[in-house]
Amino acid sequence: MEKLNNILKLTKEASFKLANLSTELKNQAILNIAQILENNIEDIIEANKKDLENGKVKGLTDAMLNRLELNDSKIKSIANDMRKIALLKDPIGEVIETYKHQNGLIINKVRVPFGVICAIYESRPNVSVDIACLSLKTGNAVVLRGGSEAINSNKILVKLMKEAIKDIIDDNVITLIENTDRSIITYLIQNKEYIDLVVPRGGKALINNVVSNAKVPFIETGAGNCHLYVDDEADFDLALNVIVNAKVSRPAVCNSIETILVNQKIANDFLPLLKEKLEQFNVLIKGCENTRNIINVVEATEEDFYQEYNDYIVAIKVVNDYKESINHINKYGTKHSDCIITKNINKAEEFLNKIDSACVYVNVSTRFSDGGEFGFGAELGISTQKLHARGPMGLREMTTYKYKIYGEGQIR
Amino acid sequence: MEKLNNILKLTKEASFKLANLSTELKNQAILNIAQILENNIEDIIEANKKDLENGKVKGLTDAMLNRLELNDSKIKSIANDMRKIALLKDPIGEVIETYKHQNGLIINKVRVPFGVICAIYESRPNVSVDIACLSLKTGNAVVLRGGSEAINSNKILVKLMKEAIKDIIDDNVITLIENTDRSIITYLIQNKEYIDLVVPRGGKALINNVVSNAKVPFIETGAGNCHLYVDDEADFDLALNVIVNAKVSRPAVCNSIETILVNQKIANDFLPLLKEKLEQFNVLIKGCENTRNIINVVEATEEDFYQEYNDYIVAIKVVNDYKESINHINKYGTKHSDCIITKNINKAEEFLNKIDSACVYVNVSTRFSDGGEFGFGAELGISTQKLHARGPMGLREMTTYKYKIYGEGQIR
Repeated sequence: MEKLNNILKLTKEASFKLANLSTELKNQAILNIAQILENNIEDIIEANKKDLENGKVKGLTDAMLNRLELNDSKIKSIANDMRKIALLKDPIGEVIETYKHQNGLIINKVRVPFGVICAIYESRPNVSVDIACLSLKTGNAVVLRGGSEAINSNKILVKLMKEAIKDIIDDNVITLIENTDRSIITYLIQNKEYIDLVVPRGGKALINNVVSNAKVPFIETGAGNCHLYVDDEADFDLALNVIVNAKVSRPAVCNSIETILVNQKIANDFLPLLKEKLEQFNVLIKGCENTRNIINVVEATEEDFYQEYNDYIVAIKVVNDYKESINHINKYGTKHSDCIITKNINKAEEFLNKIDSACVYVNVSTRFSDGGEFGFGAELGISTQKLHARGPMGLREMTTYKYKIYGEGQIR
Repeated sequence: MEKLNNILKLTKEASFKLANLSTELKNQAILNIAQILENNIEDIIEANKKDLENGKVKGLTDAMLNRLELNDSKIKSIANDMRKIALLKDPIGEVIETYKHQNGLIINKVRVPFGVICAIYESRPNVSVDIACLSLKTGNAVVLRGGSEAINSNKILVKLMKEAIKDIIDDNVITLIENTDRSIITYLIQNKEYIDLVVPRGGKALINNVVSNAKVPFIETGAGNCHLYVDDEADFDLALNVIVNAKVSRPAVCNSIETILVNQKIANDFLPLLKEKLEQFNVLIKGCENTRNIINVVEATEEDFYQEYNDYIVAIKVVNDYKESINHINKYGTKHSDCIITKNINKAEEFLNKIDSACVYVNVSTRFSDGGEFGFGAELGISTQKLHARGPMGLREMTTYKYKIYGEGQIR
């Protein structure tokens, strides 16, 4: 661990230089990264092939291999996404507020970087480039801890990124932890001396490990047991259209819906239409007892309502009214994104006020829970906690602030 | 623990009612609390006397007994402070930002309460009233876990507060944990189901326990190893005046300075003046070797520079220049409040930019690190972490936000 500690110390020291680097130079560093990736596509693909071969030996599924794969068009697309980050407004240095004390003191609240952000993530190697460039843009040094499946890809990507920035800034601002042993994660998330923020991006086991063991502040991301409630005052066509989009378009993404709640007054009319529609897309439907009294589907157990299927599966529950839907969502949900379909604006407003989630929707697909759709231009992830950042996180959510106080000898 | 869990469940349920209570009714609840305290001064003093008697038996110091004591003027002062909270602007419901998507979606970022805040604190019983009213104002239910020394005072204060609000809102929004066993703290800080935010207010042992064991998000407060650096371009009179204020006025408060760094170019001239001044106020001076070559003081060891004395003690270190002062502060400090005394604005700006602390000062006493002095009107504590809230925390720092999204059937 001593070697690792020395690496982290260098990253921390480099972070102080990056924190005060000009916007122009930070953008140049990002543009250099985009260019070097495009200039080295063949080498990247070759390293990536090793990961793919190892993955096949390990028995990774086709979906996992697909996430792992880097090809010509994917690399060009990554490079172009990074060029877009270079174009975004730099949040650092913004004077958020100014307060003038009656004694003449000036108190400026100024946006600053966290320092060192540690990202812990799984197979997709493009995340290494994404998070490195988002961190550069926000003046944060970054410690990347990707999964073992992508280690060869991550190594070459980080080597190229360091090469691309070294004439502009100390290249220790981007650090890859090459040791993919799991014990390293515990070490990282407890290292308050050199790491200012941990961002875990991955499955439940990773998030739970961070929540239970971290001493460094962290932001929980990703868990998405999202709901859609169809009110008795809903437009059926609108509801069906939104449900298909929110369930079927990309079922593995965290903003897809997992449970549909249906008002009992319309259940007899709506459920057969819903079944027909979902079965067109081969969605497996599970239903509560009242649902199964109306349509022929398999049983949804209590456990189902806690599930994030991430698949072509949906649970349906008949509820008495919108108030019951609110209680259900606050009990079973993950505080991510939840929606009501209704024409009644009073019910809608009560739903939005009482659902304890990051994003609450009326008459629209939960798919819009996304940094790009929120106008952020880039996304670090979707926070499901309430501290610091909630919902989609963009550049600003990767910053903190400090108070600069200017005086002329004032005392209290 | 089952009984405790039921109590927390009731608090959580009540929090949903409070979250949507009108500003007018929240203010009325706070004013009722102020009134009921003033109407029951004798009963409060009687309960407090039990705590004082128990405290004497336990051998509490005079300073601790003084913090524990409630008398007529203290109770009236608490009541008046609460009336001031009622007058402050309600942060809840504020539309922080609005974004209109090109497809017509409206995305409103709206300020909302956390839900349930759990405060863990030590002897001063006025904290129970402070935090309960700050929480009411910000629409948060509150779980109060005070120290065993103040249990009789806390019991009567919470009983009266519940009485004062019960006609306005479910009185489960204020909950006192009467069991002062330490194991309860671990249970509370891991209860993600019913508690949304933990705010520990107390010594290092408490803060470390929370950092190591909490699963609920928390805000670290209070650790204040603050510094003042006297540059070679400093005004000596201004420096001495600020130092006396920042060290002597209230040495036990977290915004007092613990280490003075002095530029070597002025050390011969400045240190004798500093010694004379500090000794007028009976401050014990500890010095590094270079300091002791100039003035006759006791030795400051490496350990001293990590100390938060909270007492009439100060450490002095001679440094080569302001750059060394920056490195020293970032190494030994607690990210609270640090100051440079200089007439050179370039050095000052570099110091403010590079010191990694919540509040960075030029030519002014660190005593201004205080919610009242920052214009917040009230203070929950001073955060020394970077996530969510940094420095003095007022009402806004006790809130989070959610996104409300309004559509007409939009899909992606």
